[in-house]
Amino acid sequence: MTYCVGIQVNTGLVFASDSRTNAGVDNIATYSKMHPFVKEGHAVLVLLAAGNLATSQSVTNQIRKDIKNPNAKRSLFTAQDMQDACAYVGEISRKVQKQYAAEDQQSGFSVEATFILGGQIGNGRPQIALIYPQGNYLSATAETPFFQIGELKYGKTILDRIIEPSSSLEDAARCALVSLDSTSRSNVGVGPPFELLIYSKDSLRIDHRFKYDQDSSYYRALRESWAENIRTAFFSLPKFDWERGD
Amino acid sequence: MTYCVGIQVNTGLVFASDSRTNAGVDNIATYSKMHPFVKEGHAVLVLLAAGNLATSQSVTNQIRKDIKNPNAKRSLFTAQDMQDACAYVGEISRKVQKQYAAEDQQSGFSVEATFILGGQIGNGRPQIALIYPQGNYLSATAETPFFQIGELKYGKTILDRIIEPSSSLEDAARCALVSLDSTSRSNVGVGPPFELLIYSKDSLRIDHRFKYDQDSSYYRALRESWAENIRTAFFSLPKFDWERGD
Repeated sequence: MTYCVGIQVNTGLVFASDSRTNAGVDNIATYSKMHPFVKEGHAVLVLLAAGNLATSQSVTNQIRKDIKNPNAKRSLFTAQDMQDACAYVGEISRKVQKQYAAEDQQSGFSVEATFILGGQIGNGRPQIALIYPQGNYLSATAETPFFQIGELKYGKTILDRIIEPSSSLEDAARCALVSLDSTSRSNVGVGPPFELLIYSKDSLRIDHRFKYDQDSSYYRALRESWAENIRTAFFSLPKFDWERGD
Repeated sequence: MTYCVGIQVNTGLVFASDSRTNAGVDNIATYSKMHPFVKEGHAVLVLLAAGNLATSQSVTNQIRKDIKNPNAKRSLFTAQDMQDACAYVGEISRKVQKQYAAEDQQSGFSVEATFILGGQIGNGRPQIALIYPQGNYLSATAETPFFQIGELKYGKTILDRIIEPSSSLEDAARCALVSLDSTSRSNVGVGPPFELLIYSKDSLRIDHRFKYDQDSSYYRALRESWAENIRTAFFSLPKFDWERGD
């Protein structure tokens, strides 16, 4: 499994992802699912990937090739805005999937991949978008300020309760980590190292990037504190009337 | 959707369920998914159902008919122990599903239903079990003290963090309600009224039974308190080093 989350707040963007991949429980490996593409002062774009790993690797390889190729018709760094960048990634994704579509239908495995693409291009607004396997995409709004891909349900409730456009970048980053922690507690298919990337509006560079193992000091402090705080929150809930002796 | 949870602690059992059913988002209705069968002083059995509603209704109807029929070969109240009761319910469920199996394959809809059966028979130990659509079943243990059926992922993390065999019945009941509340916040397919039933070991009667609407005073107090407590828990997490000015 995979779990990635992208959050869009007024002051910037947060990206977080786990690193566990599995093709069956006996075939577990570690792959980064976070791919930043940075041209400092010009554009910062971060791609998170879920689904077929071969597909998402082909997509990121193609993106890198197009960036390096001076003769490429399009690349992530020639995109005029985030819409343009999303359409470009969606198109590559469709092409890669199409190559394997025949095998897909025969063997019953799926070559589909879903992406979160976020970032800022020049003076444009920082944005995140969800790119479907079909290549079309959906941008975040004030009402829907985050996207999740992969094993999303376990970690959704805390995002639903905390994230709003006015959240600070740091709170959004902490919430993403709590969401990852809760998911990895309930599903062994999602696990550390967890990657976290924080982008401040208009900086046009990566502001903070971390890779947390189970024992990284900040992630450990956060995890232990959350485990304790959530128990305190729970055990101070109102009692039933017969417990209060009414 | 449906979400039901059954919890087994040292001092008894807790059952909770939502009441929303839907066959598509434009066909939403309210049905109880909690079915208690009580012969006071002799046996208390509670069935929670998820899956095809027609199947689960047929199963509960058959259970009621067998209880009323003095000539029935088996019934929930002639079961010698919880294993016997689970096997009986599993068998009925198989039979009901088999009746519609041919239509099942043609139309692509599923007649499957999954149950949680819990209770106490005579001097036996109070127990909960998960009954699969195939009719086989799995009993709870100290390591796995709860079962969930239906839309289970959103509400699993809080159960994972709180429930242990030494939890009080009241804490287990509150945890079930929090789990339902979180699920209904994140998935509109799960919604109130929520039913809650608390069974104390060896009482051989239903000790507490509630049906909470969105506005029921206890559920409302719990929900509002949890929403506040979880925010307090979150906003007191350790800060990143640059926030602390280190």
